[in-house]
Amino acid sequence: MNDLFLKALKGESVSRPPVWMMRQAGRYLPEFMAIRDNYDFFTRCQTPELASEITVQPIRRFGMDAAILFSDILVIPQAMGIEVQMKPDFGPYLPNPIRSTTDVENIKVPDVNTELDYVMKAIEMTLEKLDGEVPLIGFAGAPWTILCYCVQGQGSKSFDQAKTFCFTHPKAAHMLLQKITDTTIAYLKAKVKAGVHSAQLFDSWGGMLSPVDYAEFSLPYIRQIVQALQHEAPVIVFAKGCWFALKELSQTGASALGVDWTCSAINARYLSGGQITLQGNLDPARLFSPPEKIRDMVNTMIREFGKDRYIVNLGHGILPTIPLENVSAFINAVKEYRE
Amino acid sequence: MNDLFLKALKGESVSRPPVWMMRQAGRYLPEFMAIRDNYDFFTRCQTPELASEITVQPIRRFGMDAAILFSDILVIPQAMGIEVQMKPDFGPYLPNPIRSTTDVENIKVPDVNTELDYVMKAIEMTLEKLDGEVPLIGFAGAPWTILCYCVQGQGSKSFDQAKTFCFTHPKAAHMLLQKITDTTIAYLKAKVKAGVHSAQLFDSWGGMLSPVDYAEFSLPYIRQIVQALQHEAPVIVFAKGCWFALKELSQTGASALGVDWTCSAINARYLSGGQITLQGNLDPARLFSPPEKIRDMVNTMIREFGKDRYIVNLGHGILPTIPLENVSAFINAVKEYRE
Repeated sequence: MNDLFLKALKGESVSRPPVWMMRQAGRYLPEFMAIRDNYDFFTRCQTPELASEITVQPIRRFGMDAAILFSDILVIPQAMGIEVQMKPDFGPYLPNPIRSTTDVENIKVPDVNTELDYVMKAIEMTLEKLDGEVPLIGFAGAPWTILCYCVQGQGSKSFDQAKTFCFTHPKAAHMLLQKITDTTIAYLKAKVKAGVHSAQLFDSWGGMLSPVDYAEFSLPYIRQIVQALQHEAPVIVFAKGCWFALKELSQTGASALGVDWTCSAINARYLSGGQITLQGNLDPARLFSPPEKIRDMVNTMIREFGKDRYIVNLGHGILPTIPLENVSAFINAVKEYRE
Repeated sequence: MNDLFLKALKGESVSRPPVWMMRQAGRYLPEFMAIRDNYDFFTRCQTPELASEITVQPIRRFGMDAAILFSDILVIPQAMGIEVQMKPDFGPYLPNPIRSTTDVENIKVPDVNTELDYVMKAIEMTLEKLDGEVPLIGFAGAPWTILCYCVQGQGSKSFDQAKTFCFTHPKAAHMLLQKITDTTIAYLKAKVKAGVHSAQLFDSWGGMLSPVDYAEFSLPYIRQIVQALQHEAPVIVFAKGCWFALKELSQTGASALGVDWTCSAINARYLSGGQITLQGNLDPARLFSPPEKIRDMVNTMIREFGKDRYIVNLGHGILPTIPLENVSAFINAVKEYRE
């Protein structure tokens, strides 16, 4: 197996850094769009044949150094009994958002092996298709980010309703965060058992919180999850916008931290304490630049982060309208990197 | 005149820090809603009687230490000949966004004294109503933030189209940024001539850019504006999400920098070089906390930022649904502050 990714997670020296892209399985790929035309979002997630096929598509086309299972962070609230719809041109929609202590009390911590059995099956099928070529990453949302959707009921620029719920009902918020955490730990453990080689936690909306509120409503739950998982598989924590918490995140037991593009390599190394493996961080919109410019930016990134303890990635998910040749330029620039 | 605000901008010692709130003129106030029920958004901006009345309403009710003229950053593209609508429950909508070099070439740098005469009249009427009680702040959007709306055509979570335009048409982007800059300099100079005591630049979407892209597409234009204005009135630069640029922003000649709530006081002081006056930074959603908690948070903020070279504010605009008693708690906690 191509072990660049796992070596980088262990902090071992590599000939070049590994590369993959957040949201690499999906939307910008013609072979994905062909599947999307025939099956709706959650059918794609819940059908192991489809999820595994979508997962390996980018590997076949571009040869990234790791695959990430096609799924969604909102399968967790779904498994907890909260209805989640995926509306075209709108995004996630939760028709019965959580707004009271009673709502939280009614939420169950499910048996993930029953409720999310389809994920485990998709992992097994993906591993067969990958046939040991590259490692497979499983993922989950950080509890704070999941709470954002559960309370707000949809995407938002500022998740004001989610924050207001936390600030006016802190006890209920913590109860909900703990239920999400317990579910997520069981879920990621089951994924590791099914065969994923690493797990990434996405705290997409952590950067909406002040450092003090992050320390109260997000960090402790990330810490619980990492500590429950770290001896079973290396964990990557990507907390978008959370430059202010990189130090604390580096001390959770995570093997690597993702950083977004507002955090320069030198700031990321400094703020994270200089030892932990970092992953990132090209602005996804920068993949619209001409291929030559993309190659230059990749080379600059690797020079600035260093080739070791570094995983090349975007600073957030790839955008749906990125030209394929620009993706090639990004991936190939890493593969052709020489010191 | 209550000179706490102007003294803080000069870096002079004060008995307590001054306080005002971004977007204090508007939406959460019942007396504003009464006006809003009868006049649409741009009528309110363009009618000096209404704009001046809305500007002084929060001062009468809460007694902030500075007033900020009711207006909108999008009056600049409007004056440049770009149609801007304000749609209820949607926000700004520009039906003919800028998408090509030709579009940029067709944009004019207007005579602000003609096109924005109503703003200057509103300033004069506001100064009469304020009768020397507190200073008046005028504002404008930073050119990057204005470009975001001109190209995207509406609000956005990531302003991908605006960024793509900059990354694929950098020359046209710089031409547009320069036209916006020239208009903004003339506009703010006219405002100072009309009587505002200070000007604030809002770079609301600066935090969407990487440090390298910020240094190319935003910072040079902010610098031009500050340098053109700084000897006429103290300038505050609020670049939301731009913790990574606080050092460079502190060297523009600005009298103060706004900071959002993700940047702790100690980080803000460190990153900005420790000398410049800072303004901020309570999370606007934290005004939903009970009044007692708000008072505690204000006292903590003042202790952490220090009473001098500090202007108490929120970390972004006040939310429309904040209870009035919570606003009172915020303002009064500052006024009652004793070392």
